[in-house]
Parts: sequence; structure tokens; C-alpha cells
Amino acid sequence: MVAVTRRRKLNEADDPSSPVLRFEPGKPLNLDAGTLLSPFQLAYQTYGELNAARSNAILVCHALTGDQHVANTHPVTGKPGWWDVLIGPGKIIDTRRFFVICSNVIGGCLGSTGPASTNPATGKPYGLDLPVITIRDMVRAQSMLIDHFGIDRLFCVLGGSMGGMQVLEWASSHSERVFCALPIATGARHSSQNIAFHEVGRQAVMADPEWHGGKYFEVGRRPEKGLAVARMAAHITYLSEAALHRKFGRNLQDRDRLTFGFDADFQIESYLRHQGITFVDRFDANSYLYMTRSMDYFDLAADHGGRLAEAFRNSQTRFCLVSFTSDWLFPTSESREIVHALNAAGASVSFVEIETDRGHDAFLLDEPELFAAINGFLRSAARARGLDDGP
Amino acid sequence: MVAVTRRRKLNEADDPSSPVLRFEPGKPLNLDAGTLLSPFQLAYQTYGELNAARSNAILVCHALTGDQHVANTHPVTGKPGWWDVLIGPGKIIDTRRFFVICSNVIGGCLGSTGPASTNPATGKPYGLDLPVITIRDMVRAQSMLIDHFGIDRLFCVLGGSMGGMQVLEWASSHSERVFCALPIATGARHSSQNIAFHEVGRQAVMADPEWHGGKYFEVGRRPEKGLAVARMAAHITYLSEAALHRKFGRNLQDRDRLTFGFDADFQIESYLRHQGITFVDRFDANSYLYMTRSMDYFDLAADHGGRLAEAFRNSQTRFCLVSFTSDWLFPTSESREIVHALNAAGASVSFVEIETDRGHDAFLLDEPELFAAINGFLRSAARARGLDDGP
Repeated sequence: MVAVTRRRKLNEADDPSSPVLRFEPGKPLNLDAGTLLSPFQLAYQTYGELNAARSNAILVCHALTGDQHVANTHPVTGKPGWWDVLIGPGKIIDTRRFFVICSNVIGGCLGSTGPASTNPATGKPYGLDLPVITIRDMVRAQSMLIDHFGIDRLFCVLGGSMGGMQVLEWASSHSERVFCALPIATGARHSSQNIAFHEVGRQAVMADPEWHGGKYFEVGRRPEKGLAVARMAAHITYLSEAALHRKFGRNLQDRDRLTFGFDADFQIESYLRHQGITFVDRFDANSYLYMTRSMDYFDLAADHGGRLAEAFRNSQTRFCLVSFTSDWLFPTSESREIVHALNAAGASVSFVEIETDRGHDAFLLDEPELFAAINGFLRSAARARGLDDGP
Repeated sequence: MVAVTRRRKLNEADDPSSPVLRFEPGKPLNLDAGTLLSPFQLAYQTYGELNAARSNAILVCHALTGDQHVANTHPVTGKPGWWDVLIGPGKIIDTRRFFVICSNVIGGCLGSTGPASTNPATGKPYGLDLPVITIRDMVRAQSMLIDHFGIDRLFCVLGGSMGGMQVLEWASSHSERVFCALPIATGARHSSQNIAFHEVGRQAVMADPEWHGGKYFEVGRRPEKGLAVARMAAHITYLSEAALHRKFGRNLQDRDRLTFGFDADFQIESYLRHQGITFVDRFDANSYLYMTRSMDYFDLAADHGGRLAEAFRNSQTRFCLVSFTSDWLFPTSESREIVHALNAAGASVSFVEIETDRGHDAFLLDEPELFAAINGFLRSAARARGLDDGP
């Protein structure tokens, strides 16, 4: 069972069920850590067609445990794409009109080079031999993918959470290549509390003896229990207290009284355990360490002499920021700070705070107000960009 | 090292450095689980002297990982008692005036019968052979201790967090024995989100292979890594985002730049790791499971037909509730709900919400407004009880 899972994982890491762009030794990726990653590869999905002017491309950036399978059936879980509700023919992001690109980030585990990928120098998975990957590294790799498509300027870059950090980085370091940007439920830096939750998750993984210092593939094991605990802790932060109360309250799971033991008496316990167990089937533990670290390291103001407005100086990009009232991982104040910086930089920016009790996860859900905001912003930007109004 | 620690722990569990009251087979403890615990013992500390009328006794109830060492040097850590700032000669709770009692709760690990105690039937530690202990069980045991002192009516019962739950239970099921009650930073039931955090902690402990199904003492091991992860996750919930930002922000730990690795780059990481590591030296992992479970199970309204006010019907106890603005584990709304129920029951109640950014942990800190509230309430209650005004 472990062996089968491992084989499938390794295949998805090295030889994924997505198109792959390989960058041979002549085209290394410059990492913020100060080293070069070479060779490396990016796994991606596209939907729709690039128009003749190459002006209708939308880049979607995925979140911590997301991947490139944004609008197609997931090859490991068999579930619909993670933004399938938003992206597709006739949907808000209409793939009859836009060319949508989504790539697995560098450091991920679904086909772009990451810790589960085979290190060509050793023939074994990288494990922790990769340096820490930053959000800027991810974006730098994505820009090489965009070059490959011959796209000078993306019509839009959008994403939530860690995806939103990539959007901000794109709009900052590649502003001339981004017509409009839609960062959702995100921040310009990771807060102390968020770093703390990530650190708990990493310690849970690394405390699992099956982690083997990151070399678990080499001994045919995986730190499943540690990774499940990490996911459980993180999952609480994606929801709101109100949503948990509404969905679960103190309801009991398949029983009519307390058992006076340590089984999952409460529905919330059963739900969390399920979240942990299913996560380890689709995600690599080392990749989880890298993804969390990339968010911890993100601090756009620090990259610009401590002034966030400097990150957006002379930006011609149009921005729309979205936050959710019950998101305590990236509260509205974080978005507001970015809006202030954009205003100070003289950029074009709109901001929508959406009233919902669904917490941080709202950006992945069927949230009508979110869709209305995205739709309105994209339609207006498309007109400004001279794209026809679509069907 | 492990063996030494284990011996010390076992000693503290069976033969603690506190006075112990042993209840022999003729005096069992009725557990809510439906069984009897017998024999059992309570370890306790007292400070000051009981007056001739036996009317000056204050019972302090400890929190999740607290113990009876409320105002004396801790026998394991060597640190001052956990409420040393509040209790002692000439302090707010003046031990020249009051007789202060604090006992380790049933299920604890500092000398009252709990999972680390030797089961006389087997000669081995109970481990998970104890049924789940409830807040009501803890209070039932404490009332037997109070009987032992010949005290009919306590002047005051006070405590924070899990201690506050015990205070509420005392005032509900033993109202005639409680002149005044001071529940701090607590709730009448554990919320879904709080159960979720506890479940993550339990899963972290139980995921550690050194847990050995709870029988780790028998193989001379301890699930230290799992317990440390549990403590780290819990510790985040004791603080506020604002306090974390103020104390740590994104400051680096003993370095001037990021290392691009998985060491503790940030101060918050180093701090959390320290919290985890030091905790396992003083606390038993199984006891942590029992303590968290007792809080999860607490639901005072459910025990009274779903109406919280019924829990306090005809109560003659005077109440003062305290909450903290930045406490997100037991937000003010939880205290307010209790206040409403007390009002509905016609009880005497005052309520203080204290403005602070120190989160849930504020109740353990040198918080002048908290001390002022406790002082004012106790002075007024003491006068009503006919206790002299003290020095």
C-alpha cells in the first residue's frame, strides 16, 4: 500500500499527468537562496485558447496545498478542479474567451520541481537538499513559463492566500507584464501568528519518526501521521469559529451520548480526522514544509526598504483586492494595508470586503459575492484592454 | 535520562511533594462515566489558616496544565507558583486573612489520582484504563476535600479557563457551599473550535509512536515530541495576534538574515519550540488527554435540560465574571452568555471585561485591572460574609 502510493506520488512528481515544460541546464532558475536550480521543470494546465494578439491570458496562482488542476479532474483524488466553480466554458472566467494558465509552483509535488522530484545529480528525491523556495522564486519560474507561451503581458493574474502572495509579487516585480491583478484573502507579509501555526505543522511532520530527516522515500515510508496532524491544525485556521459552530456545534458523531473515551465523540473531531487522513493521500510532506516556509518568508515591504508602497511604485497594473469578514488568517486589515500602499503609490485599486462566516476558505467556495466582484472587475478590465465583451 | 525523568514523574504522581488525602475503598468517587474510582487520592496545598468559624476558605481551581502549586515554588520546575502574583501574605488574596486551598484535579499528574498514578489493581500506571474524567468529577472530589477540612461553605471559589469551568460547576451543583464565585476567562461549554484545537493536540500525542497506546511508562518511554507539538498548537490559542505581533512580529532569532532552511529563523518559532520542550518536562501526556477531554465534555446547559439559567436556579451565590477583550479561546461573548443566564436566574452578578492585548493568558499575568476587579469583589463579599476587613 505504501509502496503503491509512493510509486504514484513519485510519478506525479517526476512525470505528472499534466503538460510539462523542462528547462535544461542552459536555462537555470535563479533562487533567492543564492543558488541556481537546474535542470528544473514546470507542470501546468491550460484551458481555452490564446488569441492572436496574445492578450487574453489569465494566470491563476494556487494556494498552499493547491496545484495546477484548477479546472479539470484531479489525477490523484478524482475530484473536480479546485476552482472548477469559477473557471470553465460559460463560467465567470470563461474559457471560451480567456486563455487560462495554472502551473504547479516550484517546491510543489504535482510535477513542478520540488522536494519529491528526483534530483538528477543523485537519482534520489531531493528531500531537503533543495534550498527554501520563496514566493519570488515561484513567480520567477512562472514568468519563464509565460515567456514560453510568447506572452508579453498577462491580462490578469489572480489567486487567493499563497496564490494572492504570488499575485502581489507579480504585480510588484513584473508590473509591466500584468494588466490587472486580483489578490484574494491574502497579505503582503505573513504575520507572527501565521508563522506560528506553520511552525506547529512543520514540527508535527518532523516529529514523526517516519519523516527520516526528509529521506522517507528512500526507506519506502511516509510521515503520514505527522502530516495529518499538521493538516488538522491548519484546517482550523481556514474556517471561522462561527462556521464551525454553525456546521458542527457540539453535535455528536453517529452516537446519542458521550462515550467517556477518546474516540471521535464530536462531529468536529471526526471531520478534522478525515481532513488529515485524506490530505496525506494527495500531498508530499516535504513539499508541505517548503510551501509553508515560502509563505513565512514573504514580506513584500521588507524587500523594498520597509515601505510597501515602494513595491508598487509606478505600477500601471489595475488592482482589485478581496477580503472576507470572518477570515482570521488574513483579516481584512491585511488587505487594507495593501490598499493603502497602492493608494500611496498612485495605483488604480478597488477593494471589496465580503460579509461571510465561512472564514479564509471562502475564496475556494461557491461565494456569489466573490464571483460578482471578480466578474465586474474582469469585465471592466477586459474592456479597457480592448478585449471583446465575450459571449 | 528518560528513566530518571520517569521516576521523578511517577513519584510526583503517586507520592507528591504536597500533602495528600487518601480516600480508602469505603469512600469511592462517583464518576460521571458511571463507575466508581476507589481508592483515590487528592494532592493539595493550603496557605494561611482556617478561622474558628471556618468561614474564610478560598478554593482556587487550576487550569488545564496547572496544579496545586498555586503560591509555592513548583517541585518540578523550581518556578514560583502559577498565581504567586495574586496569592500570599499581603497580596490581593491575603493569606494572613484567608485560608487558601488548591488541589490537583482528578485526572491530573501532580499527585491526585490520574493516568500516571499506579493502579492498585495492577501495580502499573492507569494509562487509559481510567474513564474520562469530567469537570463535575473534579468538583465532586474537591467537595470531599472540603468536607475533610470541616468546611460547610467556602467563602469563595475562583479560577480561570478550565478552573473557571470548575467554579461554574461548584456554583451550580454545590451552590449552598459557595458564598461567592469568580469564574475568569471561561465558558459554560467548550466551543466547536476549542474542541477542534484540543483534538489536534490529542492526535499529536497519539500519533507519536512513543505513546504506545498510553502504556509508555511500562516500556520506559514518553511521547515527548507529540506532546510538545500539542503544547505548541495550544500555546498559540493562549495568546492574541496583537500580542504575538508586539512581542515577536517577524523578528529573527539570533541572526541578521533568513537562512533559507528549516531552523527557527523567526523568534516566534524559537519561542514556541521552547514552550513545547519545557512543557514535556513537567506534564504527563496521558493526563493532557484527560484534561483536554474534560473541557470538551463540559456543557453546563446540556446538564440542565438545555437551559443555562436552570444551572443557577435559586442560587444564593454572588458572582463576578471576568473576560479579556483579546481572548479568542473564551471570548467575552461566552462570559456574557453566563451573565445573561445568571440574570435570568435572578442571581447576584457583576461582570468585568478587561481591555488587554494579552489574550487568554492574561488571567495568569500581572494584570492590574484583573487584580483590581478581584480585590473589589472579594472585599465587598467579605464584608457581606461578616469577615473582618483584614489588615
